[in-house]
Amino acid sequence: MGLTSSDVVDTAMALQIKQAGELILKDLNEFKELLREKAFQHKNTICMGRSHGVHAEPTSFGLRFALWYEETKRNIERLKQATKRISIGKISGAVGTFSNIPPEIEEIALKKLGLKPEPVATQVVQRDRHAEFLSTLALIAGMVEKIAVEIRHLQRTEVLEAEEPFTKGQKGSSAMPHKRNPVGCENLSGLSRLVRSNAFASFENIALWHDRDISHSSVERIIIPDNCILVDYMLNRLYGIIKDLVVYPERMLKNMELSYGLYNSQRVLLALVEKGLTREEAYKITQSNAMRSWQEGVPFMNLLLKDEEVRKYLTEDEIKSIFDLNYYTRNLDYIYERVFRD
Amino acid sequence: MGLTSSDVVDTAMALQIKQAGELILKDLNEFKELLREKAFQHKNTICMGRSHGVHAEPTSFGLRFALWYEETKRNIERLKQATKRISIGKISGAVGTFSNIPPEIEEIALKKLGLKPEPVATQVVQRDRHAEFLSTLALIAGMVEKIAVEIRHLQRTEVLEAEEPFTKGQKGSSAMPHKRNPVGCENLSGLSRLVRSNAFASFENIALWHDRDISHSSVERIIIPDNCILVDYMLNRLYGIIKDLVVYPERMLKNMELSYGLYNSQRVLLALVEKGLTREEAYKITQSNAMRSWQEGVPFMNLLLKDEEVRKYLTEDEIKSIFDLNYYTRNLDYIYERVFRD
Amino acid sequence: MGLTSSDVVDTAMALQIKQAGELILKDLNEFKELLREKAFQHKNTICMGRSHGVHAEPTSFGLRFALWYEETKRNIERLKQATKRISIGKISGAVGTFSNIPPEIEEIALKKLGLKPEPVATQVVQRDRHAEFLSTLALIAGMVEKIAVEIRHLQRTEVLEAEEPFTKGQKGSSAMPHKRNPVGCENLSGLSRLVRSNAFASFENIALWHDRDISHSSVERIIIPDNCILVDYMLNRLYGIIKDLVVYPERMLKNMELSYGLYNSQRVLLALVEKGLTREEAYKITQSNAMRSWQEGVPFMNLLLKDEEVRKYLTEDEIKSIFDLNYYTRNLDYIYERVFRD
Amino acid sequence: MGLTSSDVVDTAMALQIKQAGELILKDLNEFKELLREKAFQHKNTICMGRSHGVHAEPTSFGLRFALWYEETKRNIERLKQATKRISIGKISGAVGTFSNIPPEIEEIALKKLGLKPEPVATQVVQRDRHAEFLSTLALIAGMVEKIAVEIRHLQRTEVLEAEEPFTKGQKGSSAMPHKRNPVGCENLSGLSRLVRSNAFASFENIALWHDRDISHSSVERIIIPDNCILVDYMLNRLYGIIKDLVVYPERMLKNMELSYGLYNSQRVLLALVEKGLTREEAYKITQSNAMRSWQEGVPFMNLLLKDEEVRKYLTEDEIKSIFDLNYYTRNLDYIYERVFRD
Repeated sequence: MGLTSSDVVDTAMALQIKQAGELILKDLNEFKELLREKAFQHKNTICMGRSHGVHAEPTSFGLRFALWYEETKRNIERLKQATKRISIGKISGAVGTFSNIPPEIEEIALKKLGLKPEPVATQVVQRDRHAEFLSTLALIAGMVEKIAVEIRHLQRTEVLEAEEPFTKGQKGSSAMPHKRNPVGCENLSGLSRLVRSNAFASFENIALWHDRDISHSSVERIIIPDNCILVDYMLNRLYGIIKDLVVYPERMLKNMELSYGLYNSQRVLLALVEKGLTREEAYKITQSNAMRSWQEGVPFMNLLLKDEEVRKYLTEDEIKSIFDLNYYTRNLDYIYERVFRD
Repeated sequence: MGLTSSDVVDTAMALQIKQAGELILKDLNEFKELLREKAFQHKNTICMGRSHGVHAEPTSFGLRFALWYEETKRNIERLKQATKRISIGKISGAVGTFSNIPPEIEEIALKKLGLKPEPVATQVVQRDRHAEFLSTLALIAGMVEKIAVEIRHLQRTEVLEAEEPFTKGQKGSSAMPHKRNPVGCENLSGLSRLVRSNAFASFENIALWHDRDISHSSVERIIIPDNCILVDYMLNRLYGIIKDLVVYPERMLKNMELSYGLYNSQRVLLALVEKGLTREEAYKITQSNAMRSWQEGVPFMNLLLKDEEVRKYLTEDEIKSIFDLNYYTRNLDYIYERVFRD
Repeated sequence: MGLTSSDVVDTAMALQIKQAGELILKDLNEFKELLREKAFQHKNTICMGRSHGVHAEPTSFGLRFALWYEETKRNIERLKQATKRISIGKISGAVGTFSNIPPEIEEIALKKLGLKPEPVATQVVQRDRHAEFLSTLALIAGMVEKIAVEIRHLQRTEVLEAEEPFTKGQKGSSAMPHKRNPVGCENLSGLSRLVRSNAFASFENIALWHDRDISHSSVERIIIPDNCILVDYMLNRLYGIIKDLVVYPERMLKNMELSYGLYNSQRVLLALVEKGLTREEAYKITQSNAMRSWQEGVPFMNLLLKDEEVRKYLTEDEIKSIFDLNYYTRNLDYIYERVFRD
Repeated sequence: MGLTSSDVVDTAMALQIKQAGELILKDLNEFKELLREKAFQHKNTICMGRSHGVHAEPTSFGLRFALWYEETKRNIERLKQATKRISIGKISGAVGTFSNIPPEIEEIALKKLGLKPEPVATQVVQRDRHAEFLSTLALIAGMVEKIAVEIRHLQRTEVLEAEEPFTKGQKGSSAMPHKRNPVGCENLSGLSRLVRSNAFASFENIALWHDRDISHSSVERIIIPDNCILVDYMLNRLYGIIKDLVVYPERMLKNMELSYGLYNSQRVLLALVEKGLTREEAYKITQSNAMRSWQEGVPFMNLLLKDEEVRKYLTEDEIKSIFDLNYYTRNLDYIYERVFRD
């Protein structure tokens, strides 16, 4: 019979990858539900938004989970599409011409296996399919890294707004209770590099010689199982970390004080302009108070409340309302509705 | 007004990438139609199929184009999906909370621009979108490389079954008419490495710090325009090469003689078994003739026709029918129907 | 005359790369001297050492510069070796056999140009040389990234132990004086990704077909000038950042308080054991104070000073000497001697 | 005692890598000697040199081995340098300050282990050392790929100038004696992709946070042992292939006929010019014969011998001497002397 070994190998591999894809899809769906839950749980937990590592404006801690929820949705969509395009078997002989095997065999066998046939094959299923699948896994690993890096930042001694759940192995350092290291997230950061570089190797497998050379095989024997197993592991480990993430809302508020409310300077300036000052005058007043606040380490609001020039234009209530944190979260419902309506 | 510079930059970039995506989509569609045409033009051009660079079984030269046609279809599908997921603007302020800009502005502005909003943003549109787009371009570049490598193989002096069209610059080497080099395809092979490695850089841009750091920017200023321009260039250059590809069907037939018809040995063996020989006997006869054919450089069929033992079981017509090339292409219609029915 | 175009191109390219290598070597040497200066300037600036982003033990801020000094030395050594191995010309004709050009020409010409000949060439200088040179540049870019990431961490609002010098362009944000972003270091972080991925592309250029195919050329036209220019730019930009780096030693001391001196818990335990307690007893006492310190946010030393049980064994002076920061830097001279003796 | 776990881990790892480096160095030295032997064995085996996959000029098959010999020498030099720079232990405590361990311990211990100390460490040995070592292995893998690709080309049915030794497993295909596939070299081509992409991952390990984060660890546990084992395996497998490589010198000569001696056209032209023709006249005569030779598939020399116009200027002996293959190898001794004098 005209079945070639690559008919068997490639079809079996497609089956395995399809199953791995479905497993990882399940991981992603479970993770997505966890993120939804966390997004609502922390919707009203106010924390500082940061750009360039520097305080920007207040935001909601729940939004971070919503962000990851949305990215998980995209990765689910991508993985479904990539898994569909890799669920491809091939039983068409030495150079894909059905020379010694009738097409009906392929039709019947693949149908039973739940695979589609490679519409036109060489000796093998085409390798752009595998490269796409593996780079989709690398995108998922990239998301894991992004979340892991966020938590590592939050767990810094100087920030300490959140911590990985403590595992039993870390119990021993009870004489150094401050020394809880985000080793889970660091591990995930590293693994994402690995998943990524494995994916890169797969792109070189696309351009095989003529009807196939077997150079792709030694690469795939390592990178395909490794990346499937790694991404499954990573999503499960991350699930555990997010599920029991220790969150410190009071520290979030305390950290916000480190920029003395200076993120409101533009709002102060606009309020003064609205009261009739020229932009130049308003800027001068705002800036001098802002500078003093930063240099002396005093809350910006307090300086404004005490500044006679400012008080000519703004009442205590007006000043306080400028510093009202609720201002920054008043459009949260809009965003949540957009993300979670499905 | 609360528009941040990244609102402008990211939205403008999305517009440009969307347009680039559509341009490349047009390239792919045109290339696809060219491949369809070539697939039918060369449907009955018989050539040797090769695995490991070594003769395997006869096939149709047109099938090669059908193979690329099918891969182009996949890449069109992928590019559509990736372009859709990158056509995302963002006008939601410093940390994506619409703190100083009403959501309506984003809705109206992005609608006018033909973009969807980032459902939940930080200061920026999320970078997994860009990594996906760029790795989709790398998949397209991988296909270009695959085709380029095939043509480079076919243009070898020892193979010479096809050649890139001669450009005017190559006219000068008329004193060395054998020296037509596949420099276009070599150029494309190199560029695909570049597109690929640029794509790799984009995966490291996913995990930005908190609401954004600007490390991605210096990378994207180079890799996004470069990869869009490169892939557009590559598809257009490849189009020209395939359109006027010089094909030598006689040389294809001549090259087939280099393996003396030995790819039929299994068919000979089966024919002998059908006539009543044991598998061992059939194998012994087949193998001794095959070995002699290879060592002496004589057509396998001729040896069989003259072998008395063989002729006890197989008539001249039977032997010749085993070596009929049409055997290998009898399922071509089935494959073409499967590929081109849409 | 039998000079081929690749004789000219490869020799000219070797000259340019050699000059670029020497330029970058000059950059590295200047950077090294700056680091030496900074290492001594900040030798006695005490700051917190951190592992996993979490406070570990006090260290010297100057040591950070010494660390980079040492890595710069390694990179100088590597770049010298790689530049030597790429300073290779080739004037030996179409397939490197001196078929139409006498070896003397190569000897004389390359000597004049300050290049060594490729001892045995194909049509081209061998491409492992270029891959080595480019990955050496990627190692240098990796060092730049490491330094840039350190500064980005130190410039976080919550840490703020150091800041990039303020450029004039940042003047405008004087109404938001806290918003000084480490955009230079972020830029450098991004560029290092680019230098790295460009280097990766060069490894695929090693295995050219037979005596050469020209696939490497389209890659090299981009990655070689880009990486040379980028690394020169990066080192110069980093030089400016390090030269005028704003350092806040008081904040370093203040940040140290965030872990309440708990990094001394092991030393406390050992002191108690030395006084005759069993390890279990000592551990229990140490741990209960450490836990209380962490949970209540009180300096560990203060608790110990007030703990009657502890005071049975340790005097005030003994306790205070355990918390003496000089303990952690007593071997600095040893390290500095090791690093800077040359 | 103040030994940290990373003191142990990094020092143990340095020991292992040093040993692996020495093992691979041994592989390279043995391989180098084999290549020297092969270079002399095939010094006078004439074959066609090819650029762009197209016939260029005759060369010596032995030169190919000399080429690889020279690259092996470079890789030996690189590996020695990289191994020296990675043979670095570290026993200096939590943040490299010898806070709880005296420097003497490090000195004594590392001396015993044959390692140098990290002159200034953080918690760990610096990771540029590992990235350099792994990219040096990738350069070695690049050389293996280059050799493997060459043999795969030579083993093509249409070329068949050399073949991998037949392994026992391939015995079974005796009924298809033409079907000897270069699966060893294809395997090596694939593995080089893997070694390369593993090396890429190591560059992202350089920029650890502050005194270390442990993200590098999960990557290194895979890429360091994998790449060491893979490169050792690759060199040994390649050794076996080169040692028993089957070479077909007659086929080399036969393949040369495929370009009909047209590579001599320039020499013909020059000979005519020397006899007094203008360059234009000489070019016209040469070109018309060259074109006819190519189009009709007739040896160029035969046409010249019969061309009355040519024969006015060149005698039979003169024409034949132009086509003398020895012309192309007359500088071989010069090259061999340059390569093998050490």
